[in-house]
Amino acid sequence: MSEKNVLAEAYKKTPYKVPGHGQRNIQVLKEAIMNIDGETESEMYGKGKVIDDFQAKMAEYLGKETAVFFPSGTMAQQIALRIWCDQKGINKVAYHPLSHLEIHEEDGLKTLHHIESILLADKESVIQLEDVMSLKEEIACLLLELPQREIGGQLPDYKTLENISAYCKQKGIKLHLDGARLFEILPYYQKSAAEVCALFDSVYISFYKGIGGIAGAILAGDKAFSDESKIWKRRHGGDLISLYPYFLSADYYFNQRINKMNQYYEEAKELASYFNKCHVVSTKPLEPVSNMFHVHFHAPKEEMEIILAALYEQSGVGLTSYVREEAESTSYFEVSIGDLYSQVPKQELSKVFNLLNEKMKDISVR
Amino acid sequence: MSEKNVLAEAYKKTPYKVPGHGQRNIQVLKEAIMNIDGETESEMYGKGKVIDDFQAKMAEYLGKETAVFFPSGTMAQQIALRIWCDQKGINKVAYHPLSHLEIHEEDGLKTLHHIESILLADKESVIQLEDVMSLKEEIACLLLELPQREIGGQLPDYKTLENISAYCKQKGIKLHLDGARLFEILPYYQKSAAEVCALFDSVYISFYKGIGGIAGAILAGDKAFSDESKIWKRRHGGDLISLYPYFLSADYYFNQRINKMNQYYEEAKELASYFNKCHVVSTKPLEPVSNMFHVHFHAPKEEMEIILAALYEQSGVGLTSYVREEAESTSYFEVSIGDLYSQVPKQELSKVFNLLNEKMKDISVR
Repeated sequence: MSEKNVLAEAYKKTPYKVPGHGQRNIQVLKEAIMNIDGETESEMYGKGKVIDDFQAKMAEYLGKETAVFFPSGTMAQQIALRIWCDQKGINKVAYHPLSHLEIHEEDGLKTLHHIESILLADKESVIQLEDVMSLKEEIACLLLELPQREIGGQLPDYKTLENISAYCKQKGIKLHLDGARLFEILPYYQKSAAEVCALFDSVYISFYKGIGGIAGAILAGDKAFSDESKIWKRRHGGDLISLYPYFLSADYYFNQRINKMNQYYEEAKELASYFNKCHVVSTKPLEPVSNMFHVHFHAPKEEMEIILAALYEQSGVGLTSYVREEAESTSYFEVSIGDLYSQVPKQELSKVFNLLNEKMKDISVR
Repeated sequence: MSEKNVLAEAYKKTPYKVPGHGQRNIQVLKEAIMNIDGETESEMYGKGKVIDDFQAKMAEYLGKETAVFFPSGTMAQQIALRIWCDQKGINKVAYHPLSHLEIHEEDGLKTLHHIESILLADKESVIQLEDVMSLKEEIACLLLELPQREIGGQLPDYKTLENISAYCKQKGIKLHLDGARLFEILPYYQKSAAEVCALFDSVYISFYKGIGGIAGAILAGDKAFSDESKIWKRRHGGDLISLYPYFLSADYYFNQRINKMNQYYEEAKELASYFNKCHVVSTKPLEPVSNMFHVHFHAPKEEMEIILAALYEQSGVGLTSYVREEAESTSYFEVSIGDLYSQVPKQELSKVFNLLNEKMKDISVR
């Protein structure tokens, strides 16, 4: 068994797990549809009461005229950018160097839509107004990801968002929100989703992060935008005869968890402080601004896998199922707080972090 | 209420329905997952035991090296054609003028992949070897849809398929099978799926036609082809974190219905003969070669809607929920035989067709 598997196996066996909502298993679907009347009719290719109802509910929540359900955010966001590019007749957009579109989509935006991306800001920072103002080329659309996931879920000041929005409006640049974790940042900003979305021309949200659904996304904007997005949805092969397994589950878990985002956020701050008290361990951001953050070790991945696997066995508390290499002698992993955190007894938490601190003290920082 | 709704409403109320497997409602999903252990883990972005098992099962059934599950056939087929075009460096493919890609996909193939389509054969005929041989331009791939759905589900002779396959091989043209209804034609050809698929380089099959699943498709071919198709699946936004609601249901209904295709085929022939005995009613093809066919009336849509609605009320047997305009004074609808047909008592069938024949006699053919 590889060391990675040793850690994953040790994690699996822990009675208490710190991140997430629990296992992604078939029970997630079973629970979501259990109480739905079997006679409820499927939508047909995006048409029908069940999908209309959910889309209308999400449009209202986001404060947008219309909302369209998509199988994935990858599809929804490429389409949003394509619509804005076509409208302006410019095949250029700007986003962060670690945007999902740039690093996780096999260059779909470029190979399918022939849209060029301009990377704004340093990899380690969020996009600021100055970055947008310094753009030398004309772009059709600016995409902002809130929070910036790949750097631990960081956020710009709300004032910065307002300034970028005003600047884009003035320059005729469409502003698109990658809101894969939009629900999760509202407690920090102390804003409603509709207030944040009002700064953007189009908005994507996801249902399998903080909400904990199975898959699926909403793309929202004005009616002309949504109508066009449906045509592109069909072109992409996303206009399935039935998407209800996703949006019915999305609706179920939305109702369950939308009011828990503040709890997750407070718990993330608490958990981060536990990590930050440990020797050669730190979180990014130091104080989380959502339910997520990254944990960095000043120790290589292989060493951390052994330490953590032993820690889990001793404490019965799982902190992560994996560790990723960062630099040669540093490593990290990502935490997202969900329903599980509050189920870990406080004394168990203290115990595991005391133990972790002890173990990390043996590491000589190179 | 519009007349279309009058027919649809009358159809809904009939205790017996002739086409299909029954309502597309949430119960279809509930039944499929009812007996699956809730602890079964979801696949993650196309990786994991549940999806591997289903893909391996389908690859074996189709006699191909590998198979990849897709959310839709629209996505799977565009990707197949793109792979073959890229491989040959020619952005041209050929298919029937009424191919799904040409009439139902909002030109995804052209707008996303910049692939040009050459339309082969007359709209009312299936593609013959001569059509392929008469091609003046070089193409990367020929797509054959078996059966040709939009003309009632017609098929070429099997010998023609073999000849086209041999010709394409000789000319270096890739041959792709639009097998949305592949299961349904095997009884007519008296061939296994693997025997038919051996004539093709790549194959798409669907799970919500004869199989009656919720949605989803398989694209099968050799390993290099499948590996590339997975990259394109991600680009299209089809590489969802969880596709299990679709492929678990596909597997469930595949097991239930794959051995009923011969029954559906025999029943389709029986049903077509009932229609063909009625005044100014005929089916296309005259004798079905799968579980599907079209029914043509020598009467306009509006008149047929009134006649059929009255017929359903009198007989309690529903034949179709809609009628489409064909020419000014003719109309038609599509029938696919599923589980419901065998539940209609024979005497009720005789009764409804006697009644239909009576009603159609009052129509003066213009």
